[in-house]
Formats: sequence, structure tokens, C-alpha cells
Amino acid sequence: MTGITSSDGEKRLVLMSGRAHPELAEDVARELGVELLPTTAYDFANGEIYVRFSESVRGTDAFVLQSHTAPINQWIMEQLLMVDALKRASAKTITVVLPFYGYSRQDKKHRGREPISARLVADLFKTAGADRLMSVDLHAAQTQGFFDGPVDHLWAMPLLVDYVRTRVDPTNVAVVSPDAGRIRVAEQWAAKLGGCPLAFIHKTRDIRQPNKAVANRVVGEVEGRTCILTDDLIDTGGTIAEAVRVLLSAGARDVIVAATHGVLSDPAAHRLQECGAREIVVTDTLPISEDRQFDKLTVLSIAPLLARAIREVFDDGSVTSLFDGAS
Amino acid sequence: MTGITSSDGEKRLVLMSGRAHPELAEDVARELGVELLPTTAYDFANGEIYVRFSESVRGTDAFVLQSHTAPINQWIMEQLLMVDALKRASAKTITVVLPFYGYSRQDKKHRGREPISARLVADLFKTAGADRLMSVDLHAAQTQGFFDGPVDHLWAMPLLVDYVRTRVDPTNVAVVSPDAGRIRVAEQWAAKLGGCPLAFIHKTRDIRQPNKAVANRVVGEVEGRTCILTDDLIDTGGTIAEAVRVLLSAGARDVIVAATHGVLSDPAAHRLQECGAREIVVTDTLPISEDRQFDKLTVLSIAPLLARAIREVFDDGSVTSLFDGAS
Amino acid sequence: MTGITSSDGEKRLVLMSGRAHPELAEDVARELGVELLPTTAYDFANGEIYVRFSESVRGTDAFVLQSHTAPINQWIMEQLLMVDALKRASAKTITVVLPFYGYSRQDKKHRGREPISARLVADLFKTAGADRLMSVDLHAAQTQGFFDGPVDHLWAMPLLVDYVRTRVDPTNVAVVSPDAGRIRVAEQWAAKLGGCPLAFIHKTRDIRQPNKAVANRVVGEVEGRTCILTDDLIDTGGTIAEAVRVLLSAGARDVIVAATHGVLSDPAAHRLQECGAREIVVTDTLPISEDRQFDKLTVLSIAPLLARAIREVFDDGSVTSLFDGAS
Amino acid sequence: MTGITSSDGEKRLVLMSGRAHPELAEDVARELGVELLPTTAYDFANGEIYVRFSESVRGTDAFVLQSHTAPINQWIMEQLLMVDALKRASAKTITVVLPFYGYSRQDKKHRGREPISARLVADLFKTAGADRLMSVDLHAAQTQGFFDGPVDHLWAMPLLVDYVRTRVDPTNVAVVSPDAGRIRVAEQWAAKLGGCPLAFIHKTRDIRQPNKAVANRVVGEVEGRTCILTDDLIDTGGTIAEAVRVLLSAGARDVIVAATHGVLSDPAAHRLQECGAREIVVTDTLPISEDRQFDKLTVLSIAPLLARAIREVFDDGSVTSLFDGAS
Amino acid sequence: MTGITSSDGEKRLVLMSGRAHPELAEDVARELGVELLPTTAYDFANGEIYVRFSESVRGTDAFVLQSHTAPINQWIMEQLLMVDALKRASAKTITVVLPFYGYSRQDKKHRGREPISARLVADLFKTAGADRLMSVDLHAAQTQGFFDGPVDHLWAMPLLVDYVRTRVDPTNVAVVSPDAGRIRVAEQWAAKLGGCPLAFIHKTRDIRQPNKAVANRVVGEVEGRTCILTDDLIDTGGTIAEAVRVLLSAGARDVIVAATHGVLSDPAAHRLQECGAREIVVTDTLPISEDRQFDKLTVLSIAPLLARAIREVFDDGSVTSLFDGAS
Amino acid sequence: MTGITSSDGEKRLVLMSGRAHPELAEDVARELGVELLPTTAYDFANGEIYVRFSESVRGTDAFVLQSHTAPINQWIMEQLLMVDALKRASAKTITVVLPFYGYSRQDKKHRGREPISARLVADLFKTAGADRLMSVDLHAAQTQGFFDGPVDHLWAMPLLVDYVRTRVDPTNVAVVSPDAGRIRVAEQWAAKLGGCPLAFIHKTRDIRQPNKAVANRVVGEVEGRTCILTDDLIDTGGTIAEAVRVLLSAGARDVIVAATHGVLSDPAAHRLQECGAREIVVTDTLPISEDRQFDKLTVLSIAPLLARAIREVFDDGSVTSLFDGAS
Repeated sequence: MTGITSSDGEKRLVLMSGRAHPELAEDVARELGVELLPTTAYDFANGEIYVRFSESVRGTDAFVLQSHTAPINQWIMEQLLMVDALKRASAKTITVVLPFYGYSRQDKKHRGREPISARLVADLFKTAGADRLMSVDLHAAQTQGFFDGPVDHLWAMPLLVDYVRTRVDPTNVAVVSPDAGRIRVAEQWAAKLGGCPLAFIHKTRDIRQPNKAVANRVVGEVEGRTCILTDDLIDTGGTIAEAVRVLLSAGARDVIVAATHGVLSDPAAHRLQECGAREIVVTDTLPISEDRQFDKLTVLSIAPLLARAIREVFDDGSVTSLFDGAS
Repeated sequence: MTGITSSDGEKRLVLMSGRAHPELAEDVARELGVELLPTTAYDFANGEIYVRFSESVRGTDAFVLQSHTAPINQWIMEQLLMVDALKRASAKTITVVLPFYGYSRQDKKHRGREPISARLVADLFKTAGADRLMSVDLHAAQTQGFFDGPVDHLWAMPLLVDYVRTRVDPTNVAVVSPDAGRIRVAEQWAAKLGGCPLAFIHKTRDIRQPNKAVANRVVGEVEGRTCILTDDLIDTGGTIAEAVRVLLSAGARDVIVAATHGVLSDPAAHRLQECGAREIVVTDTLPISEDRQFDKLTVLSIAPLLARAIREVFDDGSVTSLFDGAS
Repeated sequence: MTGITSSDGEKRLVLMSGRAHPELAEDVARELGVELLPTTAYDFANGEIYVRFSESVRGTDAFVLQSHTAPINQWIMEQLLMVDALKRASAKTITVVLPFYGYSRQDKKHRGREPISARLVADLFKTAGADRLMSVDLHAAQTQGFFDGPVDHLWAMPLLVDYVRTRVDPTNVAVVSPDAGRIRVAEQWAAKLGGCPLAFIHKTRDIRQPNKAVANRVVGEVEGRTCILTDDLIDTGGTIAEAVRVLLSAGARDVIVAATHGVLSDPAAHRLQECGAREIVVTDTLPISEDRQFDKLTVLSIAPLLARAIREVFDDGSVTSLFDGAS
Repeated sequence: MTGITSSDGEKRLVLMSGRAHPELAEDVARELGVELLPTTAYDFANGEIYVRFSESVRGTDAFVLQSHTAPINQWIMEQLLMVDALKRASAKTITVVLPFYGYSRQDKKHRGREPISARLVADLFKTAGADRLMSVDLHAAQTQGFFDGPVDHLWAMPLLVDYVRTRVDPTNVAVVSPDAGRIRVAEQWAAKLGGCPLAFIHKTRDIRQPNKAVANRVVGEVEGRTCILTDDLIDTGGTIAEAVRVLLSAGARDVIVAATHGVLSDPAAHRLQECGAREIVVTDTLPISEDRQFDKLTVLSIAPLLARAIREVFDDGSVTSLFDGAS
Repeated sequence: MTGITSSDGEKRLVLMSGRAHPELAEDVARELGVELLPTTAYDFANGEIYVRFSESVRGTDAFVLQSHTAPINQWIMEQLLMVDALKRASAKTITVVLPFYGYSRQDKKHRGREPISARLVADLFKTAGADRLMSVDLHAAQTQGFFDGPVDHLWAMPLLVDYVRTRVDPTNVAVVSPDAGRIRVAEQWAAKLGGCPLAFIHKTRDIRQPNKAVANRVVGEVEGRTCILTDDLIDTGGTIAEAVRVLLSAGARDVIVAATHGVLSDPAAHRLQECGAREIVVTDTLPISEDRQFDKLTVLSIAPLLARAIREVFDDGSVTSLFDGAS
Repeated sequence: MTGITSSDGEKRLVLMSGRAHPELAEDVARELGVELLPTTAYDFANGEIYVRFSESVRGTDAFVLQSHTAPINQWIMEQLLMVDALKRASAKTITVVLPFYGYSRQDKKHRGREPISARLVADLFKTAGADRLMSVDLHAAQTQGFFDGPVDHLWAMPLLVDYVRTRVDPTNVAVVSPDAGRIRVAEQWAAKLGGCPLAFIHKTRDIRQPNKAVANRVVGEVEGRTCILTDDLIDTGGTIAEAVRVLLSAGARDVIVAATHGVLSDPAAHRLQECGAREIVVTDTLPISEDRQFDKLTVLSIAPLLARAIREVFDDGSVTSLFDGAS
């Protein structure tokens, strides 16, 4: 029987994955010391998805992993169908693991008559039967409040900081936010790095077309420093690439970009490779296909963090404890 | 202000459409004598959808039309986002119009640990904010019961029968079901055509792979008759094409195929053109792209039926009355 | 303390029964090796029902059995009250066992302004506090989708097939559906019997008065064969008796009737005894009072199947596995 | 089109009735100046109920009247089915009118592991689709709080008091409660009658078998007075008949019994006729069949009160205003 | 790790308390043999409350104790916030312990357009995430039905009766209700004391201002007897003090007042001390500050009862059994 | 009859207010040209609140205004009770108007085992019966997504900007955020003022005690400029006062503080008067008692904005249109 059974035989953890990012699922399973629960999933000719679990899941603590990468609506629907199947097959608890939370940027109405898509996604999973969500570095922490139940919000920042620290001289860095709205994250980086200077790029961005940006100028001191440009995600890379250029023009020594989620939609690979940054660091919460990889890209593995959090949940331990001292 | 306002000014009907099948939406709007409510919808680089209505919808009776064609998960999510936006923008009532109900074939668990996807779809729309569903020829009528609220279930059969009647000698026809499970529909056709003979194809179908079929033999008399082969939908056309061959082998004079929903996934066009049937008749509940059209295909317009039903709903009239005498 | 306690003492199964079919409850309890939980239930003078459990049910996995026989509304309400009492008495999980699912034939709107009674019944049990339903041979499998939670759908067909196989020469049978809408079940019988011929009775039935039927003629070959006439239930027996007559007129050698649920409302006993069939086989999902029994009736026990399924649910085993190879 | 249409044509009131108490429905309809909406309702052979409305109810304000008399579970289920049908047929609002609220005496747990049946009934109607309840003289006013929505709680006391006042010499009466738990109602009667003396019967009643009572002695002064013995309902009449005897033994001049709901289960008619009371006054919230009528029984019509309340609800008037000065 | 872990390590009980009545929480914890779970709670400058638990509560059976004393809205909100925090922190079950149920007197609409506050409170706790409520001597037992889930309703009466029995000559007592609406409780006292006489004060009370009362006269015999004046709670003491005076005027030998909940709002202490009663007995479900204590007041500890009930819930025992023979 | 009736008599707007900020309610009513609906509200001796509406509200569009000022839990509960009363009294729609949204700063879990209080507040209002929320300048726009329904989010920024523009030389200003997390608002101010420079204060704030702050240094250029220090609210004024000092030390010419919500908890008045700012500008979404007012404080009236938005909602107009061009 696939899964992990507790020492007294009362509980059984099973991990299953949608088709979006099988490598990550395998990595998490390996970290947990478990096989993925055998699952059938394919598309019918008209695009409808079929899913089925090949083993009984009755009474289990089920963790359903899916990476919300493109084609994102397909993968969200697949995960919803998996949750529905688990509910109807009497799983005891269902935890939806979405390393990157799809639609998380649409977390408010910028203008009238828009949806609040991130809330809708939370409600869809609740309706399908989810008891708990687990995600990494939500675009806004408020999104935790969109789900009516526990949300285990994991932080990749310690992972990224630990790596970046090995790549810079901490006495001569500045942490930079590419955007006035994201400075809080940069501020946390600055604190982790021992209180280094902070800056941001003051620009105008058309809020209705978030992939396009018009960068302006640096607010804060960056001259002669290695700038760590931080964000939660990199999508088409336009904002980041422009920020790198602005920083270099302002006299920065060099720039390292660090973000949790490498969405890397076209033409991100080209833009980032050419933008002048020394290195681009992301995690593998999203799959990065061969054609979207490039020399300067470093990808850190998120699987150990997910596996530890899943284990804490299963053992009724503390997920909070994973980040003690982190904030 | 777009829409239809009732004579006393108290109510306002607005019709909006997703991007799946704009021609149908235009046709329905024209039948209703109304403009489609101006709507913005596009995809972000990573596939997330953005939607927004350009006019106030506060207090309106909103009808949101989307055709569940491939890529079906994309169009379902778009419609869900539109419903969410309407709910948050204070529409008074929200009617989801899905001429073809996506996932309607997954309406039960064939085996353990499957989802009941058709129920899930109903629940997702309810969660997003739908007050009512309107659909045409559900795969199983029981699907009406999946939604917790009114479902206006329209019948295209009268439309199809009226057309087919002009194409055959009613004294020498047989109505044939391609499948033991669909004879009820054929029986209704037989009744409409004045009590003609009924037959079905006895075959084995792997219920887990509905697009593949192994046809066997005809049960019932078809020799020398024009056979009307009926079904609710044609997907890849395998079952239908095989049924046509079996009927012709069994001595049928010729065969006309009639179905409500032309899913027509590859290689349906080729199969149906070559299968030996005289004519294939469907409605346009789903868009049929140029490359999926073929000589023998006749497409009837479903827009008048949808428009009349929408009007009855808005006027607090009777949708049932549209089908009086129909069953 | 009544019930079954798991080996580690963590879980306790209790089985309780309404007053509709005490023999079945006793049989199931015996198969499980457990006593029924002592329960008080009686009617007040004006027909209101009083129920109370005589032992603590706190923390138990409770299975509440009731057979939906006449007076059916009384027994449904009694079961709802039992579920409410369990919920308020802190049962850990509540599984509603309804061997025959009342109102299951009203699973869609045949015409406008009807209820969808089968969905309503599912919702009533959910509201009262049911976590899971268990039933046998639903009239339509879609009814599983009416309940917002797990439904364990048991199949009595293997039991019936095994019995009937001993009563016929399998090389000379035909499986017959009394009705165009029920051929799918007959098809499954035919498969189980090794691919024997299939037929159905083509008739017109007034869908608003399902107990009355106007049978017509056989579609398919039955001459000289022993016909196995199958259905999910036999109510007043009119449809079945007429079908037997039509089959015999069409040259069938003899007829065995097999159905899961013996509703057997008046005048079923008389009709079936006199209709010319050799034998009528049903299970005891519903009680069959003395005055409704007759010579040709064979009643198979459903208790072993229910007991095995209850045990699998309690042990977090697989109910699906009970039917491996069955479909 | 049946019903009442508001002057501007925007709203339409329809009144429909189950089969429990057709006379009351006709009376209410006559008071409203409306025809009952044509409705089909009958039982299938196994006791399942079929209901259907013969006219469109789309957009209406529907009032569904049912009297919860024996067989009470049958009539509750019929009313639930009517509500479900209205919901699915797009009625705008659904008001459930239950002149006597079935199971209202089971409004708390007297002992562990009982249901709270009155709460369950409220939840069942909510689940079926009810927007509002209307009832008369609930057994406990707290039952209003069991429904999640508006409850229009009507009082028959003014009607009863007005009648009784014509039958007694108000300067020489005492109001008596048959039971320590019902004195609040008696107190309101006493206030309405100008502050006359109050008494109650101190007895022990087995709370699990409310139809059986053991009366003891009068607390309060009744000697030489005409006693008005009040309660919300009379079921088998045992408590009341015993109370009358105790009062007469204690020197009461004579006794008039007044209650809103004449449940009058056997052997109430015989008991009350023989108990020594001068007159028994009830309303017709419940039907009183010929064999349950008797000489000393006076039945007041509740229809005018129900009709006025329905009209106030439809006109967005005030139901509270119907009782101004009443408490 | 704070709390009680079951012998097999599968379950863990944790008890936490709001700031309203820390002494009671400590007492209950001591009875259970457990430490209170360390909890941070304070007010921000504008009155918003902050709460946080200092240890993991994942997978626990959590009991959240709060005494609904003044400022009552503050303490209700604090308890709601604690429940929300527990839900989001993955507690397995959440039991809300409210020894005195705030707003329990507003359990019905006395007049139109009032809230039913006691139902609202139940719904608020349900919404926040409560699985179960535990309370002592609800003002009306019907309030149990306001919560959609189990309610453990504890009785302090045995505790009070046992104490009072030591203070009186049971052959010469009368039990008196201060109010016609509360005689049921007095009747239970009378039964416990061996069937002593019963009386009540007939008065008019403005139902909209429950703290003001106009007492009138005794109904029943009290002359020469020690009167035990019982109620569920004592708020400002006006009703009780007036009742004592009326009883003494009517010739009662002396009066002992017994009530479960000592709300004791000003000027209760003064009134009760001066009213002429021999002793006032309450429990400590509510804190009684120094300035509200007085000579004649006796306070019994409710902690043992709460602790035993919590333990039964945790052990899946029977709370009902705590009161066997009590009613 | 109090309220505004639509021209065709079909709709009626009523406005009612809790006791927290009667002046604002009167101002809004005056702007709307309506009387406040007469409402009774008072506290019982133990702090429980009683509310009742003195006129029928059946069928109305009700707007319930309450200002979430200290004692904030009291006023939230009062508003919840008002909503419950409206629901039970059959109001057609209920809009909760909370000019300042209480607990809006607790919109995420900063650490494990905290509540998400802002989500809880949204859910409490939903549970009580609210159909829509209306609020001004939420602390985070994501809070809109906490409510399951329409939220009309009004912006006071245009009002503030228009005022401040009259007080400064727009060619020589800088907009400053007191906090890295709030720069987005400052950026919008800068855009409205024609693209002036932007700066923020880089400080460390203990996120668990938001009223205490440790300010550090200015990031951005402020020397010689009039700084407009913006935030959504001012609570104890510590952060703001420190920011003013830092700005003046950094060479700012002078400072104007502008914020929507003047919470002004002690010792804000003293701090702000003494901090060196030229003027402090807020609106009156919260009442400012005499003792919290001071010379440099300017209070703008929010009533016209609320009244216009309420009117748009009632007329099915567009609230979005009130802010065209605002962002």
C-alpha cells in the first residue's frame, strides 16, 4: 500500500500529483521517502480531463500537488477534479499543495467589474473538497485569508537568502524592490542580511496590464553596491530587466536577481540573459522547460521545504517552527 | 446603456459572452435585439485570464454565454471569472448559459476513485455566484439535479426533427441509437416521427475510454429503410461511423446522422465524411472551425432557441411552454 | 458497550436501525458480529416520531440503516431524525445506509415545475448531518452525484447473476430489458453471461404515471430462448408482467425475472404470479410482507453484501474491491 | 394567470396548497380573492409523492400552505417537494405557511441522544428552498430562531380571547394553565382579560411520553370562578381533561378550554366531550375530521388571519402591525 | 507540550482561556490536571483585540473557555478570534466553552424587528469554526437548537440542590419561581426535594426592559415555610429582591435564593444584601468582583462539573451520564 | 414612512445607524435627503445590547451605518445585531456601511496561530445576513476579497488630494510614505499631484505591536520640499510623529500629514500637535471626541461621498463612476 503509515497504524499519508510538474512531485516524494500514489490522468479528445486513483485512499491524509504553470486553467481544473475524486473516495483530509498559487496576482479589484480571481480559486478548491491549502510565498499574504480553513504558508526567502549570501560581499550590498508595492519583501531581505540599505524603483505601471511596465528612477542609494533585486515572481521579465538597467545606470556595481517563482513566460529567458544582471536565482515551484533555461539562471530546489512541511502537517507538528527566526 | 430594459424600467437584461464562440453570442444577441455588453477578456503571458465588463451591471439580470469547446478548461475558468465579477459588481441575477455543458459525460463514477466531474462543474458555478443554469440537451437529464437552483433545460430535438423530416420519406425510416444506453432519445424521435421502428447497435464500449468503441450488430429491423442515427453529441465520430457501417451492412438503404452537439474532435470530420452516411446534422452549440467542416455536414442555428428561452426567463414567462407538445 | 472497537481502541463502529425492516438490520448485524445499538423509536398520537439512542454514541462511526418501504415518508423522516440525534450526540462519522434509495426514480424533471425528489432526499440527509451514503443499485448511477460527499454504491447484480446462472442453460438465453431506458443494465447482464443476445421491449410509457405502461413489441431475437428479464426494481409489476406476455407471444421458451429491489406494491404479487414467468428473483433490500409473497418468488439476502461494505468503510478498506471484475 | 398581480405588474402572488387540509386553503384563497394555483399531487403505489404545478411560477412570490396533521411525515415531505419544485421553477420568493408547525414540541433535548426535531424541520425547509416561514402560535417562541431567515409568527390569541370574552362574565373568571411550563400564555390571557387571577396545575409529566400526564392539584384560586383553561394545542386531551376534573374538584364554577391547535388525536373527542368542561374552543389550523368532532367543540376560522398576513408580506407591509396592542 | 495526550498518543486535549475569568480557567485546568495552553491576548489602542497561541495546536481537541461577563461584547469577540485562530492553525476539533451563554435571554422576538441574538451568537461561533458548544443552564433549553452541531448542556441544579438541602428543613420548604415563565425550573427543584409545594410570583414585567419588574402577589402556599426562590440567573436583582419582599409579606418564614449564574450587575449586591433573604447562592460561571460580593452571598465552584464534562468529551464518554437521575 | 421610495414605488431605501457616530449618520442622511429610520438601541446592565427598528423594514433596501471606533467590539456587535434584525424582518437587501473597517489591519497571519481577524469580521457580517459591504480606503485592497459578495470600496484620496492641493506649492512637494509597506498609496498621491518625487521612511516595526515603531531614515529626496506624509489611518500617531521628525531632520521644509481614518487613540492628539507638522488632515469616518481634537487638525467630511455611493447603489447606478479618473 503506497504512502506512509503512522507508527500506530491509525493514519496514512498519501501524496499524489497532477501532470503539470512531475519532477517536483518526484522530488518531494523522494524527500518524504514515499512513492507517489499511482494515478491515471489524461485528456479526452475535446480537452476534458479524466483522473482516477489506482489505489484506495479511504481514510488517508491526502496531499495533492499541482504546479500552476501554463496551461494554467487546465492544471487548476485537473487539481480540482483530483480533490473531488478524493472527497468522493472518502479521504479523511485533503491538503491542496500549490507551490505557486495561480491567479494570486488578481487578489483585489483594481477597477470596478473585475473578478477577485485569487479568492475565486480558494473557493473553488473549498467547494471541491479541500480541507487545507499549502503554498509558497503568496503574492500578498492576505491571500491566506481567502481560504476558509488552514493555509500553510511557506517561505522560500530563507532558502534564497542563504544561497545569495554565498554570492555577495554582505558589507557592500543594497536590497532593491523593482516596484513601490513590493518593498516589504525587500525590507525583510535587508533585515536578514544584517540591515543593509534599501531602495526601490519608482515607476508607473498600467495596473490593468501587469506585464507591461514603465520604469523610471531609483529611490535610495545603490551606487557602487551589489544590488539584490527581489520579488516574489518573475513573469515576462520586463519589469526586472528594466530595473536592472536602471540600477546599472545609477551606478550599481552589479545586480543579482532573486525571486521565488520563475514563471518565465516568453520572452523572459532572452530578456533576463541580456539585461546585464550577473545571476538570476529562482526556485522550482514551477517547471522550467529546456527552452526557457539560460546560462545565468540558477534554480534552487523547493522540494525539501515542501516535504518537511507535509511531514509536520501529517505528524501534527508545527509548520511555524520551520521558520523560527525567519522573520 | 446596453441591454433590454423592461417597460416599467425596473429590470434590465444584459447578455455577455466569453471568447469561446463569439459567432453564437452575436447570433443570440441579434435574435434578442440587443448588443452584447462590452467586455474585456485576454490572457496574461502565463495563461491566467483577465476579464472586465466595461459598463455597470448593477441590478441587472445577466446572462453569461460560453460554449464549452476546446480548450475547454480555459473557457470554463473564463466563465467562472465572469460570474465572479458579476457577483462582486452587484448583478441582481446571474444566469450561466452553457449551450453544451462541459464534462457532462462524467456524470457518475464508473469505477471507484473517479470524480463526478459534471457535479463538480455545477458546484463551481454555484460557488462563483450563478443563480441559474441554462443548457441544451444534457447528456443525462439527471444532470439538472446537480445544480442547487433552477436549470432551464432546452431541447434541440424539435429543431433537428423538423429539419430531418424534410429529408426523408417518413413511411420508410427507422430510428437507431448507436448505443444501448441512448435508446431513450431514439424512442422520442420515433414518437415524433409517428411511431416508426426503433433499433440500436449492441456493442461493447470500454467505459473508461469513451472515445473508443467496438461496434457489433444491429438489434431491430433496419433493412431497406432510411436510418436516422441519433445521439446527443458526436465527439471523435468513431462510434457513429462504425454504427453507419453496421447499418449499411445490415441492409439499411441509407443513413442520416442527427445530434445536438457537434464536438467533432479530430478525426471526426474525416471519419464522418467517409463513413457512408448521406448527411450529418448538428446544431452550433459548439463552434465548428473551418478545418472541421466537411461536405456532408449540415449545421442548424441554435441561437433562436436560446434567445427565446432567455427572453422567457427575463419576462418571467415559461420556458416549459417552448416545448409544449414536444415530449 | 455495543459495537465493534478497532484493535487499538481508537475507533468504534455502531449500527442502528429504524423500524422499517428490522429483519434486514438483524441480518446485517449478525454478519458483522455485532448487536444493534439499542434504540427507542415510536410514534406520538399525531404521527410525530420520537427516537433516542440508549447508549452513548460519542466518537463512534455510526451506520444508520433504514429501508425505504411504504409508508416511505415516515421512514425517511425517522432516518433523518436518527441522523440529527447522532450529529447532536457527537458521533464522529454518520453513514446513512439506504439499501433502496427512496424517490430515486424522480431523478430529473420530466416536465417543468416538478421537483427533483432524489436530489432533495440527498440534500435532506446532508442537512441532517450525514457524512456518507451507502446504497444498492441506484435507479440511475447519476444519483451518486446528488450527494455532496462519498456515496458507496453497491451492486447486487453479481449476486443475482450467480443465482440465475444456476437456473438456466447459458447457451440458450437472451437478456431482455423491459424498457428502452434500461438496456444498459441488460447489457451488463449479457456481458456477465458470456455475451448472450440482448433485446428490449419497445413501448410507450406515460412518463407522468410510471406505474402504468403500454407495452408493444420485442426488438431483438428471443424466439426459443429462455429470457432473463432484468430491471433495477419491480413496483406494481405491470411493466414486467406485460413484458413477459410479449416475450412469450414472441416465442420465448420461458422467462425469468430478476431485479434488485422488490417494491412489489399491490397488485404486484398477483400479477407476477399469473404473468407466465417461471420465476421472479429479487433481494431483500425491502421487506416483503407475507401477503405480498407468492410461490414463484425467490428472495436473495442482501445482508452479506451490506455487512462487507460497512466493514470495509470502517476499516478504511476498499468498497470498490468488492466488485473487482464485476463491471 | 392565477394569482394576484401588483398594480404595476412587477410582482405576482401565488398561493398553492398540499393535500392535508384543502378546506383551509380554499378559505385563505377566498379571503385573499384569489384562486389556488392548480397543482397535481398524488401518491405512487409505494407511497412516494408526485407533485407538479400546472402553471408557470417563474418570478412569483409563492406561498405554500400545508397543515401538519396526521399522517404528518407524509404532509411534511409533500410540502418539501413543493418547495423544491418552486425553487427549480424559478419562483422569486418562497414562503412556507405551516399553520401548525409539526414537531414543534420536540424543540430541545430532554435527554441525551435525542434529536431536536423542530430545528431539523426548519433546516429541511431551508434546504429545500424556503425563504420565509409563516406559522401560528409556536409551542415555544424560540422556535422562530431555528429558521435562518424571516419567520412571521402569527398569534391566534386575540381571536380566541375575543370569542371567549362573549361567553363569560369577565369579573368572575380565572385563567388556568394546565401545566407549570405554559403559564406565560395564561398570563397573557389574564392581561387581555383585564388582570384576572391566574392559576396552574402542578403535576408530574413524563417528558418522554408527552401524551400521558399525572395531574395533581391547583396552585392559585379558582373557587367559584369560571376557569379559562388555555394551552397552545390539545393533542389526545388527557392533560386537559384531567385539569378540568381537578379544577371542578377545587370548586371551579365551570371551565372553558381554549387552544389554538386542535390536534385532537384519539381519544381526544370522547375525553373532552365527557370531561365536564362547558365548551372547547380551537381554531382550524388543523383539519378536524367528522369523527373527531363533538357537541361541545367550537372551531374558529384562522383563514382571515393567514390571509391578512400573506397580504402584508406581499405588499411589503407590516405583519407586526396586525397584533398592535396584542401583547 | 501542554495538554493531555491519550494513552495511545493519538489525541491531545488542550485548554485555553480568554481574559474574562482567569480564576475559573485555572480551576478547570487544575481539576483536569493540565496547564492552560500559553496564550497571548491584549488590546490595541483602539480596542481591537490581538490573540495568539504560543504552542502548536495542530491536531488537538481544543477547548476554549470564556466567561461572558461585562464587557460582554469584548469577551465574545475575543473568543471568536481565538476560535478563528484555532481553525486556521489546524486544531482537529474546537469546543467553545461558555459557562454562561451571552445574550441567551434574547432567544426570541418579543416584538417585530428585533434580532434573535442568542441564535446570532450560535451562528457567529459556527462561522468562526466551532464544532461544539458546552454551556451551563441555558436560559431556555431550546437554545441548544440554535447551534448546528452538538451542544453539551450541563446542569448546575444538582450542585445547588445538594448545597441548599444542607441549609433547610426539607419537610417545611416551598419552591418559588420569581416569574410565571420560569416555573419549570422550580418544578424540577420541587421534585428533587421530594415533592414539596410550588409557588410563583404573578407579576407584570415589561418584556422590553427585562431588568425592571413590577411584582404583585404569590400564587401558591408559602406561609410559615422556608422558601427557595430559584432562577437561572440573577442580573440586577430587582425581580428577586421584590419577590423576597412579597414572600415575606405573604408569611414566608425565610427565603433562600438559588441561581446558577450570578451576573450581579449594579445594584444587585446592595439590593440582595438588603432584601431580607437569608442567603443568596450562585455558582462562579461568571466572575464576581470584590465590589460585587456581600455577606449573604455563597459562591459554589462550577469548575469540577466543567472539568468532568470536558474529560468525557475528550474520552468519547457520555456527558449525559453525569446527570443520570438528575431529571 | 421613513426612507426614499423610487418613482415607481417598487423600491424603498432606508438608512439606519448604530450609536457609535451619530453625527456622521445625520450628515449622510441630510445629504441623501432622508430621515434616519427610528431605531431603539441600548445596553442592558450586563452589557448585552438591545436593538429594534420602530418602523417596518419589509422589502426595503437597508443601509446600516456604524463607525468602528472604540469600544470597537461593542459597535461591531451592535451592527451585527442590527443586520440580524433586518434579515428576520424581511429587508430585501442589507448593505453594511462601515466607513472604517474594524480589524482591517489584522488581514494576514504575521506568525502562526494568529487569527485573520479582518476575514472573520467579513464572515460575521455575512452570517448575520449582510448582502453587501461598503467601506472607505481599506488598509489593504485585498480585504475586498474577504467578503463573499459585492464590496463597494470608496476612495477618500481624491477628497484629501483636492484639499491638500490648496495648501501647498505643487512644484515643490514630495510625497512620503511613513512605512515601506504603504508606498503604493504614496505613489498614487504622487501621480495625482503631477508626478512629484516619492520617498519613504525605512524603519523596523515590531509587527506584533503595530502601535510601536522605530523609525530610521529617509529613502528618497525631501530636502527643501514640503512633504506630504500619507497613510490610510493614524492610530496613536507614533509612527507619523517620528516620521515627521525624521523628515524635518533630513531638511524637509515642512510637513503636512494626510490620512483617511483618524483613529487618534491616546496619545495621538498630543503627539501630533507637538511633532512639528504644519497640519494634520483626516476625514470623519471615525468620530473625534473633543478631547482628541487639537489646533493643527483639519477634519474633512466623508458624508457626501457615502451618500453619493449609497444613492448609486440604490439606483442601480455605478459606484465605479464616482472615481473615474481617480486612479
